[in-house]
Amino acid sequence: MISNREEVTAAIMAAKVGKGIKWSEVADAIGLSKEWTTAACLGQMALDKEQAATVGELFGLSDEAIAWLQITPYKGSLPTEVPTDPLIYRWYELVSVYGMTIKELIHEEFGDGIMSAIDFSMDIQREPNPNGDRVNVVFSGKFLPYKTY
Amino acid sequence: MISNREEVTAAIMAAKVGKGIKWSEVADAIGLSKEWTTAACLGQMALDKEQAATVGELFGLSDEAIAWLQITPYKGSLPTEVPTDPLIYRWYELVSVYGMTIKELIHEEFGDGIMSAIDFSMDIQREPNPNGDRVNVVFSGKFLPYKTY
Amino acid sequence: MISNREEVTAAIMAAKVGKGIKWSEVADAIGLSKEWTTAACLGQMALDKEQAATVGELFGLSDEAIAWLQITPYKGSLPTEVPTDPLIYRWYELVSVYGMTIKELIHEEFGDGIMSAIDFSMDIQREPNPNGDRVNVVFSGKFLPYKTY
Amino acid sequence: MISNREEVTAAIMAAKVGKGIKWSEVADAIGLSKEWTTAACLGQMALDKEQAATVGELFGLSDEAIAWLQITPYKGSLPTEVPTDPLIYRWYELVSVYGMTIKELIHEEFGDGIMSAIDFSMDIQREPNPNGDRVNVVFSGKFLPYKTY
Amino acid sequence: MISNREEVTAAIMAAKVGKGIKWSEVADAIGLSKEWTTAACLGQMALDKEQAATVGELFGLSDEAIAWLQITPYKGSLPTEVPTDPLIYRWYELVSVYGMTIKELIHEEFGDGIMSAIDFSMDIQREPNPNGDRVNVVFSGKFLPYKTY
Amino acid sequence: MISNREEVTAAIMAAKVGKGIKWSEVADAIGLSKEWTTAACLGQMALDKEQAATVGELFGLSDEAIAWLQITPYKGSLPTEVPTDPLIYRWYELVSVYGMTIKELIHEEFGDGIMSAIDFSMDIQREPNPNGDRVNVVFSGKFLPYKTY
Amino acid sequence: MISNREEVTAAIMAAKVGKGIKWSEVADAIGLSKEWTTAACLGQMALDKEQAATVGELFGLSDEAIAWLQITPYKGSLPTEVPTDPLIYRWYELVSVYGMTIKELIHEEFGDGIMSAIDFSMDIQREPNPNGDRVNVVFSGKFLPYKTY
Amino acid sequence: MISNREEVTAAIMAAKVGKGIKWSEVADAIGLSKEWTTAACLGQMALDKEQAATVGELFGLSDEAIAWLQITPYKGSLPTEVPTDPLIYRWYELVSVYGMTIKELIHEEFGDGIMSAIDFSMDIQREPNPNGDRVNVVFSGKFLPYKTY
Amino acid sequence: MISNREEVTAAIMAAKVGKGIKWSEVADAIGLSKEWTTAACLGQMALDKEQAATVGELFGLSDEAIAWLQITPYKGSLPTEVPTDPLIYRWYELVSVYGMTIKELIHEEFGDGIMSAIDFSMDIQREPNPNGDRVNVVFSGKFLPYKTY
Amino acid sequence: MISNREEVTAAIMAAKVGKGIKWSEVADAIGLSKEWTTAACLGQMALDKEQAATVGELFGLSDEAIAWLQITPYKGSLPTEVPTDPLIYRWYELVSVYGMTIKELIHEEFGDGIMSAIDFSMDIQREPNPNGDRVNVVFSGKFLPYKTY
Repeated sequence: MISNREEVTAAIMAAKVGKGIKWSEVADAIGLSKEWTTAACLGQMALDKEQAATVGELFGLSDEAIAWLQITPYKGSLPTEVPTDPLIYRWYELVSVYGMTIKELIHEEFGDGIMSAIDFSMDIQREPNPNGDRVNVVFSGKFLPYKTY
Repeated sequence: MISNREEVTAAIMAAKVGKGIKWSEVADAIGLSKEWTTAACLGQMALDKEQAATVGELFGLSDEAIAWLQITPYKGSLPTEVPTDPLIYRWYELVSVYGMTIKELIHEEFGDGIMSAIDFSMDIQREPNPNGDRVNVVFSGKFLPYKTY
Repeated sequence: MISNREEVTAAIMAAKVGKGIKWSEVADAIGLSKEWTTAACLGQMALDKEQAATVGELFGLSDEAIAWLQITPYKGSLPTEVPTDPLIYRWYELVSVYGMTIKELIHEEFGDGIMSAIDFSMDIQREPNPNGDRVNVVFSGKFLPYKTY
Repeated sequence: MISNREEVTAAIMAAKVGKGIKWSEVADAIGLSKEWTTAACLGQMALDKEQAATVGELFGLSDEAIAWLQITPYKGSLPTEVPTDPLIYRWYELVSVYGMTIKELIHEEFGDGIMSAIDFSMDIQREPNPNGDRVNVVFSGKFLPYKTY
Repeated sequence: MISNREEVTAAIMAAKVGKGIKWSEVADAIGLSKEWTTAACLGQMALDKEQAATVGELFGLSDEAIAWLQITPYKGSLPTEVPTDPLIYRWYELVSVYGMTIKELIHEEFGDGIMSAIDFSMDIQREPNPNGDRVNVVFSGKFLPYKTY
Repeated sequence: MISNREEVTAAIMAAKVGKGIKWSEVADAIGLSKEWTTAACLGQMALDKEQAATVGELFGLSDEAIAWLQITPYKGSLPTEVPTDPLIYRWYELVSVYGMTIKELIHEEFGDGIMSAIDFSMDIQREPNPNGDRVNVVFSGKFLPYKTY
Repeated sequence: MISNREEVTAAIMAAKVGKGIKWSEVADAIGLSKEWTTAACLGQMALDKEQAATVGELFGLSDEAIAWLQITPYKGSLPTEVPTDPLIYRWYELVSVYGMTIKELIHEEFGDGIMSAIDFSMDIQREPNPNGDRVNVVFSGKFLPYKTY
Repeated sequence: MISNREEVTAAIMAAKVGKGIKWSEVADAIGLSKEWTTAACLGQMALDKEQAATVGELFGLSDEAIAWLQITPYKGSLPTEVPTDPLIYRWYELVSVYGMTIKELIHEEFGDGIMSAIDFSMDIQREPNPNGDRVNVVFSGKFLPYKTY
Repeated sequence: MISNREEVTAAIMAAKVGKGIKWSEVADAIGLSKEWTTAACLGQMALDKEQAATVGELFGLSDEAIAWLQITPYKGSLPTEVPTDPLIYRWYELVSVYGMTIKELIHEEFGDGIMSAIDFSMDIQREPNPNGDRVNVVFSGKFLPYKTY
Repeated sequence: MISNREEVTAAIMAAKVGKGIKWSEVADAIGLSKEWTTAACLGQMALDKEQAATVGELFGLSDEAIAWLQITPYKGSLPTEVPTDPLIYRWYELVSVYGMTIKELIHEEFGDGIMSAIDFSMDIQREPNPNGDRVNVVFSGKFLPYKTY
């Protein structure tokens, strides 16, 4: 009996490490970006029936687990409000140090509103660089204006 | 007597609203990106002597305030651990929802290490789109590997 | 020198109590709903030039304060994560008790996504009732689906 | 041996996903709204004997679990003070951004008191809209005045 | 310019200590219980026009302060989630130690619902006792049942 | 092997729901008030040998569990600092809204000191009332003065 | 206008440092222990009229401040839940490391109950020691048994 | 397989309650104070080989558990920052109410530095008293001065 | 099935205590410093294939566990934000007491930037001293300057 | 009137920035290390009479401020439990990532006890390095063993 999505994520991680599967292989198998695919496998997105079946086969999941992959999960992937992992903390730090800057510049360009985190995509790439390769990440979100009523 | 950098930031904001200055104008005046310039004015970066003088003139700051602009500030621009402002919260949410995904994909590509938030640059652009313009933000940080010793 | 929006909100509250102005009167003066208008006066929305002038006149604000009314504020109106005021706490309690219910039912009807808090409007009405009048509040937000990419 | 209501909720969720049951079907079976029914199944309301039997049959629960359904649960459905799930967070954000507004307008109309979260009902509906369908949620709660004594 | 209710409470406390006024005298002056009256003076209840005038005269408050006394305040009188003052902490401890007991016994007697903190009164009395006088406090609140819908 | 009191409380709750035992029946069996008895069963008080045997028989507990009932437990019955359950929250709210009032009035009557939460008793009664029955709760605690030394 | 006890404490500290007064001198002046006297001056105890007058004279306080010294203060002398000052933290650490030990041993000796922090005295002494002098602190509190009822 | 010290503490507690062993008996068996012995058994101190063997025999522990008793544990015995148990809370309250007093008096006597919580001993005694027996606790810690360098 | 790295760390600790293995022996076996090796075994660093095999053999780990040792872990080794263990707390205290000092002196020497915690090494040594041996810890991190852009 | 040490620290910072004084100059003036001197000026250490006079002259402080420099301050230099400033956060991260490692290795070498943060010194040096200069920080603290008693 599986009673929450975290158990499925745990099964996926166990299979991933045990079998040496790469996220990019999973992405190729379901024909979507590695970013969306990884997030979905980690319990942040819902898969459709076919995607779930493909992922289930790759990781050797039960039918019950495959059913859970199609349920919208309770999202949020971090165990604490301020993440302790150094790689993820740097992103929290960017929000802390640059948050007001991002807010000021989006408002200066677009007026009052937000950048959507739902109508959103993300792309992570390696940029070769003689001083040390760089991680380039592009966030693209629709601007949503506050409306008067 | 000015005893911390927040007082200078408050003076800058008061002058900015009162005089209707835009961040892009400040950036042009000191010849740097709008992202770095805004962060610096908001107390997240230290300016050099010449930059501080230019910024001081634009906002009508005292000599004492201009001296403070050249001091490395205590960084972190948000009043709470989890930001309440909807625009900034969406960025916190992206770290929460996609944090583990970013971690997995960077490790899959680069191995153990982090993306630097110091050897770092950011670029915010409007992307015209018939379904509603988008905010595109590029983060570029050097990959720093953990070393064995 | 006004260096943040809270000072303007304080000035509005002082004038409101001193002069006995009602929020519905302010709403009538700028021709918008009482809900949006009150939120704007309390520092949660940005007003346009004309609205700011009208509000400024009603409350007897300075030109500097009127300029601040047109700046997008740092939003979030509560002093603590869990609100202590009984009226507002009941709303927090509704999110706590019914949050998972709302999530389940929206997903059952619409699939994965959220109800927007930006493309959003709210309407508060008194419903006469022999057992005691009721407060009826309608929240209307656009459904925003998560997209695959 | 079942020693708390959360175990029953877990069993319900496991059965729901496994059997593909919809909340609206459960609501029809016990003849109440989908909102109250879902909340009850998720451990926020107590069912009477007959309702519990019906729900137990639908989800295939043990007699012990059916007994627990009739016990008033310890309520509150969220794992953290500030919810991380984007759909539920938007509701927390509405309380944060509009909380003071709701308070001001209810007091302006009714005087000192609260809107009840107990003598309360909720209705969630889809509103077709050419710009994207909307989620409309009506909260109705009795106004309860503070009394002098 | 008074911009929030706390300033009025501070003025009342300053006058109370300076003039040696007792809460029971204030209660007598407005003809209500000492419990409600003290709570009102401490910024937890709204006074009507006549009560506010009486209180204002007793404490020597300005007209502006008297106007604020008639505004429903943002309630909650404690500076921290867990109170540090030993007298008040004992009450928090009672809720902690006996909270589940109170919940169990009210549900056993009344079914699902709550005891109102709004349709509520409180009475504090000294009970002479040879082993040391006792503080007796009676809380009386209307039972409010959860309803199905 | 039972290694903490919570396991015994869980066993009691499982038996209580399974067998439909009422707290008042337990209280009658050990000849004490329903308030103290319930608190004791919920792990907030220690029972003596005879009481433990009686309680053990009623709930069908093992000898080891009965031994644990006689150990002073680690007290505090709530899972979070601010309780989420609406019934219990109302009590937290009463401490929040009326805490300073209770403090002021006890000090006005008794001087510096506290009302004991140890030399303490509690009584919960239903008060019939045509406008809806009321929950009346009497707290009685010895006044303990701070002493100079 | 003095509206809280912290302002009086601040005045006492300013005078103490400015004039080089020692706590033991204050204790001698009012004829009580240095422990109680210091706590009282720091806003943790209420002084009687004569004590307040003596303290007021020593520190050069106003009549208003002297009146405040006779009011029972809101107690709790630390700015954070976990104290940051190393000397005070060691005491917090003792409670953390030895808290369960103290609980076990008091219960083993006395049964269920507490050691009073109200009917309490404290004595701090220097113990000469060739390996480095020691701080010896004696806490003495009345045992208060939980009673059945 | 035992993977942390808490499991050993749980086994000790289970055996202690099951067999009715007293802490003072354990202390006698290893020839040390009841305070140190209890702390050690509760996972706050490391035992040497012989002490561990003696304790293991008394409580009937496995060889693996006896090995763990000789490992320095991760210390801190309380489940929350502010303890909820009334007996332990009183100690937290003493630190809260008297913390600044202790700090002031130690500095007045010794200058800048701390009282050690490591070069430390504690002694808990019952003091017979006609008004109710008292708990007397002596803390003795070496004074450690801050040094200049 | 192993679904996270903490299970492997638990297995390593169980084997370490059971077999009496020393960290320095593990370090010798993989030919790296005791600091890096211990951190890696405790789930803070990723090992390469050969290192993982060596560590696995020493502790008797399964192939699945050895696979997990090569996965970059979610880092952060402490159970609470402020560590309760006295040895680790002293390090937190050093950051608290000396944090601003370190910041000031690094900026005075290097300008704006940070000391890397990634391009970093640590060395812990015992320094014999007639007044009591000392622990000497050297932290060495590359200075990373903030850049303008 | 100066009523706490923070005001003196603020005056020192204002003078430091205004006059361009370096910490190393202050250290030279009082003949101590730059680390201790900076910590003392930032309100973490107490100065003796002569040191305070020298520091007061350098920064142009009042006699009252100079008196405060000789008072042991309430220590802890960070505004939040988890520091937001990137330079200081890296140190918090080192404690988080390496805390258990440091604990294990000190215990392996010394047995149960701690490294003192009081009998302690610190030395910060620049190490030239062709790959980028390094910050080397040496912490030296006396090992303090836990004793049995």
